[in-house]
Amino acid sequence: MKKTIIVFSGDLDRVMAAFIIANGAAAMGDEVTMFFTFWGLNTLRRPEKVKVKKSFLQALFGWMMPRGANKLGISKMNFGGLGAKMMKIVMRQQNVTPLPKLIESAREQGIRMIACTMSMDVMGIRKEELIDGLEFAGVATYLAEADEANVNLFI
Amino acid sequence: MKKTIIVFSGDLDRVMAAFIIANGAAAMGDEVTMFFTFWGLNTLRRPEKVKVKKSFLQALFGWMMPRGANKLGISKMNFGGLGAKMMKIVMRQQNVTPLPKLIESAREQGIRMIACTMSMDVMGIRKEELIDGLEFAGVATYLAEADEANVNLFI
Amino acid sequence: MKKTIIVFSGDLDRVMAAFIIANGAAAMGDEVTMFFTFWGLNTLRRPEKVKVKKSFLQALFGWMMPRGANKLGISKMNFGGLGAKMMKIVMRQQNVTPLPKLIESAREQGIRMIACTMSMDVMGIRKEELIDGLEFAGVATYLAEADEANVNLFI
Repeated sequence: MKKTIIVFSGDLDRVMAAFIIANGAAAMGDEVTMFFTFWGLNTLRRPEKVKVKKSFLQALFGWMMPRGANKLGISKMNFGGLGAKMMKIVMRQQNVTPLPKLIESAREQGIRMIACTMSMDVMGIRKEELIDGLEFAGVATYLAEADEANVNLFI
Repeated sequence: MKKTIIVFSGDLDRVMAAFIIANGAAAMGDEVTMFFTFWGLNTLRRPEKVKVKKSFLQALFGWMMPRGANKLGISKMNFGGLGAKMMKIVMRQQNVTPLPKLIESAREQGIRMIACTMSMDVMGIRKEELIDGLEFAGVATYLAEADEANVNLFI
Repeated sequence: MKKTIIVFSGDLDRVMAAFIIANGAAAMGDEVTMFFTFWGLNTLRRPEKVKVKKSFLQALFGWMMPRGANKLGISKMNFGGLGAKMMKIVMRQQNVTPLPKLIESAREQGIRMIACTMSMDVMGIRKEELIDGLEFAGVATYLAEADEANVNLFI
């Protein structure tokens, strides 16, 4: 059965939960669609700076938000990134797959990753700034997917 | 098919996501029920001060929490309201419907908006302090709605 | 019909919402499975210190995170625990069942409470540190439960 996950949050811990559920479901034979919106889009940003045209406020948002999966903070006890670093060290010690590998694995398993175009406009994030292999769509596409799914999560 | 959304969060970005999904679903012919609880209730507060009896702590909560859709902060980078202001400016530039209009549109489309009575007691929010057109109910009503729905989100 | 709730958050307000929904559903005759992961695990910690072996970072996380349902903070306006205390006072005044009683009631109603073993490894939380009556499992167990349920929430 199909599963959908809205990835609204851009916190490392929540995004990892989303990908662990998505990859688990795909491994069990489910079709999975992940819909990235608002802060969740930061997960999909390329690490390098890409030259694109933005308004002043969009540029400011873009500059303040983390650029990609490796830069996300955690939702609690982040302490300016220290908490995220500590958590990543513990995860490595415990052989937990790191987020960039989880994203790669999602792609390999054919999980659909959709970036919300309306959020991209608000955040001032352009297609060129995002990683490869994404689709671009809006809420109607999400709803059509959710209608066919038996598990729909908002993370 | 019916959809339900629990609006637990009172952050502008999350509440907007809730209303964009709700309005989108209603536009596609779905019945939608939104259930406002805890901080989500702040979305429904009237902007003006309403004279009602409260305990000291309830009055304190009421005074500290944002009064209505126009006063909500964003969940990240709010900086005492500056972030929310910036985001609203960008949204206007991008022709994104502002939250008060989304709420109006939800009402026009017949979306049921239910305020959680138990949360109202805890937050010390009285019916007179909330906007018109709401229903008042508890968890049993939510569960009955969710049982008839095919998409149930907690935001 | 079955319901599942992922309790990812460890905030008092969100965890209470999870248990109020879970207990409500169980009272209406539903089977309910709660899956505790990441910060949500703190809800299930025993209040007393339990001697177990941890790495330095795991011990640090364990020391910084709240130990049990009585120690959780609230997600907004916590002010180092003061907000949680105030909210608990108001809840008592309003005859809202406190969290420890909600957990007890969940157990009595036969709600399955599953602690996510991967999160336990990351957080460095051992079985001996958690309250009685739990099951221990991973994402595959969650997905199997969710497939049989008609309402699946991520809190």
